Order: sequence, then C-alpha cells, then structure tokens
Amino acid sequence: MPEQASETRAAIDMESWVCPAPLRDAPNIVMGHGGGGAMSAELIEHLFLPAFGPAADAGMGDSAIVDIGGARLAFSTDSFVVKPMVFPGGTIGDLAVNGTVNDLAMAGAAPAVLSTAFILEEGTPLDELARVAQAVGTAAMAAGVKLVTGDTKVVDSGHGDGVYINTAGIGLVDQRTDIRPQRAASGDAVIVSGDIGVHGVAVLSCREGLQFGTAVASDTAPLHGLVAAMIETGADLHALRDPTRGGMAATLNEIAKAAKIGVSIDERALPIPSEVRDACSMLGLDPLYVANEGKLVAFVAAADADRVLAAMRTHPLGARAAIIGTCVADHPGMVVARTALGGTRVVDLPIGEQLPRIC
Amino acid sequence: MPEQASETRAAIDMESWVCPAPLRDAPNIVMGHGGGGAMSAELIEHLFLPAFGPAADAGMGDSAIVDIGGARLAFSTDSFVVKPMVFPGGTIGDLAVNGTVNDLAMAGAAPAVLSTAFILEEGTPLDELARVAQAVGTAAMAAGVKLVTGDTKVVDSGHGDGVYINTAGIGLVDQRTDIRPQRAASGDAVIVSGDIGVHGVAVLSCREGLQFGTAVASDTAPLHGLVAAMIETGADLHALRDPTRGGMAATLNEIAKAAKIGVSIDERALPIPSEVRDACSMLGLDPLYVANEGKLVAFVAAADADRVLAAMRTHPLGARAAIIGTCVADHPGMVVARTALGGTRVVDLPIGEQLPRIC
Repeated sequence: MPEQASETRAAIDMESWVCPAPLRDAPNIVMGHGGGGAMSAELIEHLFLPAFGPAADAGMGDSAIVDIGGARLAFSTDSFVVKPMVFPGGTIGDLAVNGTVNDLAMAGAAPAVLSTAFILEEGTPLDELARVAQAVGTAAMAAGVKLVTGDTKVVDSGHGDGVYINTAGIGLVDQRTDIRPQRAASGDAVIVSGDIGVHGVAVLSCREGLQFGTAVASDTAPLHGLVAAMIETGADLHALRDPTRGGMAATLNEIAKAAKIGVSIDERALPIPSEVRDACSMLGLDPLYVANEGKLVAFVAAADADRVLAAMRTHPLGARAAIIGTCVADHPGMVVARTALGGTRVVDLPIGEQLPRIC
Repeated sequence: MPEQASETRAAIDMESWVCPAPLRDAPNIVMGHGGGGAMSAELIEHLFLPAFGPAADAGMGDSAIVDIGGARLAFSTDSFVVKPMVFPGGTIGDLAVNGTVNDLAMAGAAPAVLSTAFILEEGTPLDELARVAQAVGTAAMAAGVKLVTGDTKVVDSGHGDGVYINTAGIGLVDQRTDIRPQRAASGDAVIVSGDIGVHGVAVLSCREGLQFGTAVASDTAPLHGLVAAMIETGADLHALRDPTRGGMAATLNEIAKAAKIGVSIDERALPIPSEVRDACSMLGLDPLYVANEGKLVAFVAAADADRVLAAMRTHPLGARAAIIGTCVADHPGMVVARTALGGTRVVDLPIGEQLPRIC
C-alpha cells in the first residue's frame, strides 16, 4: 500500500536552514499551526518532513499501517490539550481514548491497546486528576481497549496547563479492507454518520460562558463498532475519516487532495442540529469548520452506498447518517457545496482553526 | 507471561473519592510525582490504577508485551519535557527517540516504528523547532526506526514550555527471550553497561550555569544494538532496565521489589567518571540517584555473567561495562551497597527526584 512505501529524503542541513516561504510570514509558532488546516499541513510538509529526513515514512498521517512480525497493524498517536479539561458531554480523558481509537478505526483496524502519557502541571489538584483518569478508564472500557503502558511527567507550575494527555494505540487491520484517502474515487457517495459541529460548540459554550438555548453536549464516542458494522456489509469502503480539528471542511479537502478528485456536497443534506446552527450564526462560525469527536465521513462506491447507509443507521452512532454528496471528476482537489439557495460555493481548507484547543 | 495477565479491578466511585493515605500529604501534584521514584509509584498505584479500573492491564510499566495478530510486540510511550531543550551532548529530540527505543530494547524487542507527538507553545521560533525535529530525525536514522505517524498541538503562549515531545514505539520481541523484572533471581550478577550519572549532570551543568572542570556531555544513545549483542551470546537474560529518572537507585529498587530479591552492590565497582563524582560532591548529590540516558543494567545468571560482560565490552556502548553486584536471598526488596570504606548502607528508592525535568 502506498502509505508504506518508504519515500527517502535527504536530511536538511540545519546550519543553513532558512524558514521556507510558506512559513515565512510567521517565523514563530502561532495557534493556527495546531488547527489541522493549511497551516498544520505546511508545518508538516515544510518543517517536520524535511527535518526528519529519511527517517520519516511518507505521509506521517493520522495513522500508519505497518507490518510487524507478520501482523498488519494500524498505529496512531494524538495529544490532547483541550481547555477546559471538563466540558458538557465529556472530558479530556474521553477525548484522549476516543480520539486514538477513532484514528485506528478510520484505517479499518480493530483497536486493541492504548498507551497513556500524562504531562501534569505542578499544583494540579489530585482529585481533578483522578476524575480525568477515571474518564480515561471508563472510555477505554467502553471502547474495549486495554491501557497497557504509560508515563507521567510533571512540569513546574505556570507551564503545561493542568493535564495534557497523549495516547498512542495499536489496532489489527481487517484483512478484508483497504481503506485510505487515496482510494476515494469519482462517483463515490460521501456519507456522514450524523450531526456535525457538536463538539466544537460544546467546548466553546462552556469556555466562553455562552448559552445557546438547549445545552450542547460533545459527541465524543468510539467509532470502531460503527466501522465494523459497515465492513460487515461486504461493501468496498474506500476512505474513512473522522472530521475533528478543522471539521468537515478540513476532512473533505484532505481526501479530495489525496485522491485527486472533486467533492461536491449538498448543504441541505448536512445533518446540523438547530442548537449548532444557532450558535454558529450568532458567532459567525461555519458548521462545516467546527470540530466533531464522534462522527465519521465515508467514501463508498455508489452501488454500495444504500447498503452502507442502511447498516450505519441501524447502529446507535449512525442513526442520523446521511448521504451528503458525491465525488466528481471535475475540480480535482476542491470541495464545492451547493447552498440552500441553490448556488454553489467553494469550501476551502481552513487556514488555521476557528476554535483553538478544542481537543 | 505475567505482564499480560489481565488483573481486573473494580472502578472506583469518583463521587466519593478520597485522596488515599500515601498521597494525602500532597493533595496537589508536586514535582516529585514526575521523578520516577516512590512518589511516582504511589501516584500510579493509588490514583491511576484505581481510576483506570478494569481497563488497566496489570503493571502499566515502562513497556508492555502484547500479542496482536500473532505477533509478540513490545509497546512503550514516554513524554519529554527536559529543560533546557538543548544541552551538552543532546537535545529533547534525541531523548525522545532514544528513550522509547530503549524502553522497547529493555523488553528484548527490536524497535521498528515510532510515533511523534509535539505540543508546541505559541511563539516558539520555527528555527528552534526545526533543530529539535532534525535531532528527532537524525536519532531515528541512527537507531534504524521509522517515524510513521504523528500529531501537533499548539497551546497558548505562557502554557506548555517551548516544545514537549511524546514518542510511542512498537518493537518485535525476540522469541528467544523472556526478559522482565520478575525474572531477576538470587545469585544473578548485576551488570551496568558503563559510566553512570552522566546525563543528569550534563543537563544540570547547562541549566544552572555550573562548570565542573571538563564539560560533561549527555550519554543519550539507543541501546537495542547492545541488547542484541547480549542476546546473541545465548545467555538467559533475566531482566534489563535503563536507569533514567531516579538513576541506578530507582532501577535497582524496582527490580528488587518486582523479583522479591535483595540486591547487593559494591560501590567501588561502579564506573563513575571523575567529572560526575566532582559535580556530585560539590552539589551534595549521590551519583546512584542521577539519571542516565544511554546505560542499562542487566540481571544475568552467574554462570552467564562473564560471557555477557565480554559481549558487552566488544560493543561501543558497553566498552566500560562492569559487574557491580549480585542478587541475594537476604533482604528481599532492598538494595544494599558496600561502601568504599568497607561498610554497608541501604540504597533507598528515591522519594521524588533530585533533579526535576532532566528528560
């Protein structure tokens, strides 16, 4: 599979390293570099990959597929720095488990084991840490993964920020599948598993003390059960992705670029809860750019779409699944939305992040 | 193997959670909780494991041995928060690679792939980040491991601290080996691979602006090649550990407790460079408690000791290897040192850390 093809690079000479053009406007790290959008991609492409040199395997994506000891494994990592650590519907602990579980699931893998590494700020109350740790344990139980190894570091008061958590995970890839962004193809149906924009609005409402009518709770959830139900249909799943940082817009753009296809979506088909719609219109946010933590987007051959959609709808986490668009040969690498008024607009890759530190 | 036996625990009721007695003196996180000594162990035993509940596999040690898809794998994670990020002999990037490589090697595994997750502070200069990233790439090349997946988060200026790095790694366990702390046995020779105390003194000298005659450079290095040379002797290696945080004292105590044996060492046999000895005596530090990042301690049946020692000495990273003591049936769980004057003293598990944030 292409992800595994080792693309060797010459290591750059750091003595003569010059900040490359796309990064030059910001010679320092800014919040947008962590947003999962264009700035994150530039940082990886123009700084991390050249600096890593030949040690980096092509891609360095959300998860890697590796063959070790005859087993086909998915391997993924994510750090979590969400602020506040507790928000409606979840905590940093839930995100830390579900985030890595979902990255593995999006590669068609059954998550097996997780590592947990905590960076704690001196002065963090032990009962607060215990509540976060319990959320990690409860989420791992719910997802059926074992916590097998870990690490704890403490940094001086005033550094860190309460609790940061990194999880890494290993999953066993289902041999029947070959799921990766590059396989999305013209003609594919684009399916979303449910309501979008919920997680970002939940964290924001809590952080900014805003009330948007009905409280919005994060959708954080482990998605590998839903993916297993989709695989069981026997359909050829081309690509899966959980639209976290940068929301649907980032995910659709990434897959359009990776597969060199156009994506055309119908805004009227997007499942957006009224609370999210209201919050977004009040704050001038676009729900397509707001993070989700318990949703997936699937790219499936048109002939299989109804079957996959039906299977998703029978799963609790896919009850509100909907076909939201198709892949087209036109405008490769670009996402175009048909608006409610019947016009069209380009859905760009976000530059940075509308809402920093939401995961 | 015992590490894999899943020891189920009832999840604790967090509503009625009371800080357990061993933690009660410090109701908040203090630097010592990250020191790899008694306070770290208490935090794991009395907070993390009860909070994780049945999701935690017994141990949650430095690395786990897991069977996935028919492959016997070692899996490990570590976060690195060393301050400063660049110090004599290395950078946070070298530590991040070598630290996880070594945790895998200490389980008898050949390291294969690493993940890298960066938590960046807003305002960190890109050229500083690029140098750290290049150190990661160079160290990975040197260790022969691939960087296959990653993550980048950014936190607001004033949080984090420049660059924190987490690495997780997967290695393939050598089928000929069964290396774990519990296998250390009475009669075993205790072998150290070279000079101790070097890394901690190197970071300290740089951080505090101290000069101790000749400059001391960190010993950070990947140890899996040395371990492979030891395995090739055919000797039955019982236990291996790299004495990082908490130094030799923490490592010897951990293994003494895990194997329920006594450890008796001869201080005169310890390879301690004069620069380290001088720095320690000036600062009132005990070299046994100072961190190493490129050394290992091996527990080997007495009959195999000379053969293993000879193999170590032919490897560049084991040239100054020495037998420093033996395992005894007396004083199980306790480490006793014979001093230069011929007396004996107990080498306790450190409580916290003499030198915080050295990795």
